[in-house]
Amino acid sequence: MRPGHRQGAQLLNAPDDHLREETVASETVFAGRLLEVRRDRIRLPDGAEATREFIVHPGAVMVVPMLDDGRLVMERQWRYPLARVMLEFPAGKLERGEPARDCAQRELFEETGYRAAHWARAGVLHNAIAYSNEHIEIWFARGLVAGQRRLDEGEFLDIELVDAGELDRLCAAGAVTDAKTLIGLQWLQNWRAGRWSIDGFTP
Amino acid sequence: MRPGHRQGAQLLNAPDDHLREETVASETVFAGRLLEVRRDRIRLPDGAEATREFIVHPGAVMVVPMLDDGRLVMERQWRYPLARVMLEFPAGKLERGEPARDCAQRELFEETGYRAAHWARAGVLHNAIAYSNEHIEIWFARGLVAGQRRLDEGEFLDIELVDAGELDRLCAAGAVTDAKTLIGLQWLQNWRAGRWSIDGFTP
Repeated sequence: MRPGHRQGAQLLNAPDDHLREETVASETVFAGRLLEVRRDRIRLPDGAEATREFIVHPGAVMVVPMLDDGRLVMERQWRYPLARVMLEFPAGKLERGEPARDCAQRELFEETGYRAAHWARAGVLHNAIAYSNEHIEIWFARGLVAGQRRLDEGEFLDIELVDAGELDRLCAAGAVTDAKTLIGLQWLQNWRAGRWSIDGFTP
Repeated sequence: MRPGHRQGAQLLNAPDDHLREETVASETVFAGRLLEVRRDRIRLPDGAEATREFIVHPGAVMVVPMLDDGRLVMERQWRYPLARVMLEFPAGKLERGEPARDCAQRELFEETGYRAAHWARAGVLHNAIAYSNEHIEIWFARGLVAGQRRLDEGEFLDIELVDAGELDRLCAAGAVTDAKTLIGLQWLQNWRAGRWSIDGFTP
């Protein structure tokens, strides 16, 4: 097999029938309080059958909240699967039928107490493509006004106001490793440098 | 609650007893071919009990393979949970007891046929901290020599040689959304700019 040298739209819209997997049968094999796991029988491109197991996820939203002084509103939160506190941007799961922007506003307010005058969508990421259909929308928020947050019952987290340069140093040093937060910083830095654009937001 | 204004080491090593969750009981509630799901009863900081469900994952390695001409060795692969082809850096799961570097070399060779003379570890990311303990080590590879790949049975993927500027445009346009791949580009660009350092690798 020779490597391809496609570019741009060709790279994205190249023929994919030789890669495509078709669903033969699908069943829910675990339905918990938080997680739903589906197991599908699939047909591979060569006609053989195989199994795929994955999390069915409603999707989520992350907010990069920028104070007028340039600092970022972030959270320190215990992440049980990793048994440690992580420094992250605010984020939360979409409720059924909820527009992403509404989710962004709701999660930012509930978790931090901040409301924002200006909102813009930067993009989307897929964080576990081998075993989850989760997508995380990336939203930016400006014109922040502090208020009283309303954490869900059983939710505990600290708010930290973090300088972007400080966040960059923590990421470079391997002290911040949350994927969505790294990508939030990536969007912030590329946008501030005028390299990546966010509709409706000028740096 | 007043927001914190900690910096650097203070931000990382701040007291966390008021955030910590303790394990009360743990059970495996799903053990499939690919996924293992655990459900734990936990004690919250206020003494109440709650449930946590998460994927137990062995960890993975991603490789950012740089050809001498500056292009990157990437893959187009069908990702069943998303029902589409994704453009991504080579990656794979750690086998039991396997050092990350060995895994990086093995996955790069098996999936692309390339061997690399020089390897360096950039960092690590955690991609689904709400419901998985997965970590992905980020490795850079240089001095690449092409060979014959050895895909696992049932594995189908295309190799693409992609210019870094082209990858940047695809990420900025929202056409590349795989989290590990976005972070691979972030490391690459910050390293090339002399901003983030990778032990043993000079830009």
